[in-house]
Amino acid sequence: MTAARLDKQKTIDLRKKHIGPSCKVFFSHDPIKIVQAQGQYMYDEKNDRYLDCINNVAHVGHCHPEVVKAGAKQMELLNTNSRFLHDNLVQYAQRLQATLPEKLSVCYFVNSGSEANDLALRLARQYTGHKDIITLENAYHGHISSLIEISPYKFHQLTDTEQSPHVHVALSPDTYRGKYREDHPDPAAAYADNVREIIEKVDDKGNKIAAFIAESLQSCGGQVIPPPGYFQKVAEHVRNAGGVFIADEVQVGFGRVGTHFWAFQLQGEDFVPDIVTMGKPIGNGHPMSCVITTKEIAEAFMSSGMDYFNTFGGNPVSCAIGQAVLDVIKKENLQANALAVGSYLSHLLEEQKEKHPLVGDVRGRGLFVGVELVRDRVKRTPTPWEFNFVLKLYQCRLKEERILLSADGPHRNVLKFKPPMCFSRQDADLAVQKIDQILTGIHVNRENKSDMS
Amino acid sequence: MTAARLDKQKTIDLRKKHIGPSCKVFFSHDPIKIVQAQGQYMYDEKNDRYLDCINNVAHVGHCHPEVVKAGAKQMELLNTNSRFLHDNLVQYAQRLQATLPEKLSVCYFVNSGSEANDLALRLARQYTGHKDIITLENAYHGHISSLIEISPYKFHQLTDTEQSPHVHVALSPDTYRGKYREDHPDPAAAYADNVREIIEKVDDKGNKIAAFIAESLQSCGGQVIPPPGYFQKVAEHVRNAGGVFIADEVQVGFGRVGTHFWAFQLQGEDFVPDIVTMGKPIGNGHPMSCVITTKEIAEAFMSSGMDYFNTFGGNPVSCAIGQAVLDVIKKENLQANALAVGSYLSHLLEEQKEKHPLVGDVRGRGLFVGVELVRDRVKRTPTPWEFNFVLKLYQCRLKEERILLSADGPHRNVLKFKPPMCFSRQDADLAVQKIDQILTGIHVNRENKSDMS
Ligand SMILES: Cc1ncc(COP(=O)(O)O)c(C=O)c1O
Ligand SMILES: Cc1ncc(COP(=O)(O)O)c(C=O)c1O
Repeated sequence: MTAARLDKQKTIDLRKKHIGPSCKVFFSHDPIKIVQAQGQYMYDEKNDRYLDCINNVAHVGHCHPEVVKAGAKQMELLNTNSRFLHDNLVQYAQRLQATLPEKLSVCYFVNSGSEANDLALRLARQYTGHKDIITLENAYHGHISSLIEISPYKFHQLTDTEQSPHVHVALSPDTYRGKYREDHPDPAAAYADNVREIIEKVDDKGNKIAAFIAESLQSCGGQVIPPPGYFQKVAEHVRNAGGVFIADEVQVGFGRVGTHFWAFQLQGEDFVPDIVTMGKPIGNGHPMSCVITTKEIAEAFMSSGMDYFNTFGGNPVSCAIGQAVLDVIKKENLQANALAVGSYLSHLLEEQKEKHPLVGDVRGRGLFVGVELVRDRVKRTPTPWEFNFVLKLYQCRLKEERILLSADGPHRNVLKFKPPMCFSRQDADLAVQKIDQILTGIHVNRENKSDMS
Repeated sequence: MTAARLDKQKTIDLRKKHIGPSCKVFFSHDPIKIVQAQGQYMYDEKNDRYLDCINNVAHVGHCHPEVVKAGAKQMELLNTNSRFLHDNLVQYAQRLQATLPEKLSVCYFVNSGSEANDLALRLARQYTGHKDIITLENAYHGHISSLIEISPYKFHQLTDTEQSPHVHVALSPDTYRGKYREDHPDPAAAYADNVREIIEKVDDKGNKIAAFIAESLQSCGGQVIPPPGYFQKVAEHVRNAGGVFIADEVQVGFGRVGTHFWAFQLQGEDFVPDIVTMGKPIGNGHPMSCVITTKEIAEAFMSSGMDYFNTFGGNPVSCAIGQAVLDVIKKENLQANALAVGSYLSHLLEEQKEKHPLVGDVRGRGLFVGVELVRDRVKRTPTPWEFNFVLKLYQCRLKEERILLSADGPHRNVLKFKPPMCFSRQDADLAVQKIDQILTGIHVNRENKSDMS
């Protein structure tokens, strides 16, 4: 029973009436109605084409036919819980394991990045017998209660008494805007020392660290790339305190960084997390995710005597889709494409930096790239959110140009590229050309009216 | 890339190696490998057919072609997050709303029963500004941290200090085995008074109730049917204390109870919860779920200033599938079928009660039926779990007969029927005939060897 397409205003009205107002749309003053998508392109109800530079969920491209086929085929055959034996479940687990260091061998399949991170916390707390968690400034790890608690990106809106006394916030290892910058002799050690100091303080209070959790590269936090060696040093401090290291790969995993399949691998071969959480790209949009950990942690979790049952997690359809995504990444060389096109995009954006004083920093790995806009390059003053400057830039001008891009970070001044992995050089050219035009316009405007002062 | 089917032992070995050992299979001594399913039947690798009496997720029947088609079609077209406008989202919300009392008008789409219940707690706490939760004995509400906390079914395995001081357990309104039984003049009021007493105690300690949460009919808790009027009285006490009423319909919603679409409606037209959570059957196996609440609660949640973003929740594929499920329920009169076949099944089971002293109680609504096995009808002594009696009954004998049934409740002595809604009279005949044979065998055996003493 397919209903006729609604008039756009009707869709807006029904949304206002029936969808929780906390669930925000993009471009809220004039939202887009997307009705179709393919590869890196999305189409609205008038069939206008948008270049998607932000959707890291549609990893192998929107509506990839092989992924759709795998899902449809398995839906016809069987979709049930994991209380029965099924080959898809075990073969998919085996294939995911094969992308990781050997000791990360035990999988738990769940339905979202949030479910994955919540389970990671439960595993860590059960294994260590400790309770406290160290998280990074500006981090976002999910929407459920236990994750709001460890997400400064969200909980900075809470009052002090609403915040958990068992959560401790470490400095973001941001060498552009953070406490220790690229001119520091050893920012990795300096940022890791901050974690060590937190551990000592927690210890003084008689509490104990269960885990340190961080995205392998911070996304919502502002596309931050930690200095190499930072994770090794943090892991050492945390393990010395009896805690474990959780790497959140929900946004950045599955080959996006180009040189490696997992973003934590950028830190070096000698770094292995104790728990890795996955999500978004894993099923190209299908609701699924995974936690992978060591045998020791999995056994400690079991020895609590409490079974873990997740109704939909690991069902044969999700596992078929997950396998198809892995197949396509390999067959279409998407990791290599992320490396090549990502480098090209970064290069184009570096050129923009030379041209436009507003571009303070360009940083990225593969198809995960951030462009930090500043009002003053020396002081690194962020472009003011109050002026809605960045918002206007991407929300109005880029949208008019049919480029979907968004901004994030604590000052909302970091444009973030994280497109489907089939993004091409031509797409990069187009997006950067439009950004160039807009920045040039702003520059001219600014000289005339100095509206940015 | 479809791999060749694995030998069953190989599947078991890989599962041992790569799947968290806390994730249990059915019949762990000799698990079943299911490769296909249709309607109410599942098929193993040898093409042996099993009658599925337990899978309330495959609500309109395993692999229903219309649901599969709706999912596949939308997967080809568009699958993205809810930050764009989409008709599927708003039309589905509108249709779900239409099944509910008018004041329950605002939807949040999420991916699992657990995500729904966690969000329900967040909504309740934000709206009321209170923290404490009242839950029922033996309740299970999900696998994530905040729900383990309110699930005595799970947390009875925790030490006292691991249990949350903000969670309070009320008596299960079980008129067969609970404190107030069918001979009590007003069990609804008596059980509700217990909730009132808890509220008073919480108040004495200076704490405040955010919510009372209960399944509309307890499932894992032992297929318990609360006496009519109980929810009204509880809601009155809870609302007087500034709290809200959350009805968990994850297992029992979508027409299963036959007379009504929602199980809470069994309590009478004058009862409306403040928040309803849905799950399992909603997408016939597709990972999705929903929380529906009032405009007031939704607005209070928004006024916290914290956005709610769920990556997969409310995507166009999930919403297409959800709509197809509603279509099929209607088109195939599945609610009426649940009523007719459910009554027939209950009638057959009542006959068993007359015949076999082991059957202590038969209770049900529609295709949600429990059979409580007892060693002594007068004392209502549960059949002993230690003897693995019930386990043997369903895990071995019924499985041999290719009937999938399970037992639950605090004593694991309640056989629970919650089959796909296309379950037929013939299916009921077959299942009960097999149970009859097995109970007869046990009876004979028992008289000879009195191995049940
Ligand atoms: C780093 C990170 N972790 C976890 C999550 C939560 O994922 P989900 O929305 O699938 O629950 C997100 C979502 O944005 C994320 O960015
Ligand atoms: C009553 C009830 N609520 C919530 C849940 C959690 O649902 P899910 O496993 O989809 O997270 C369950 C699961 O068994 C349940 O029975």
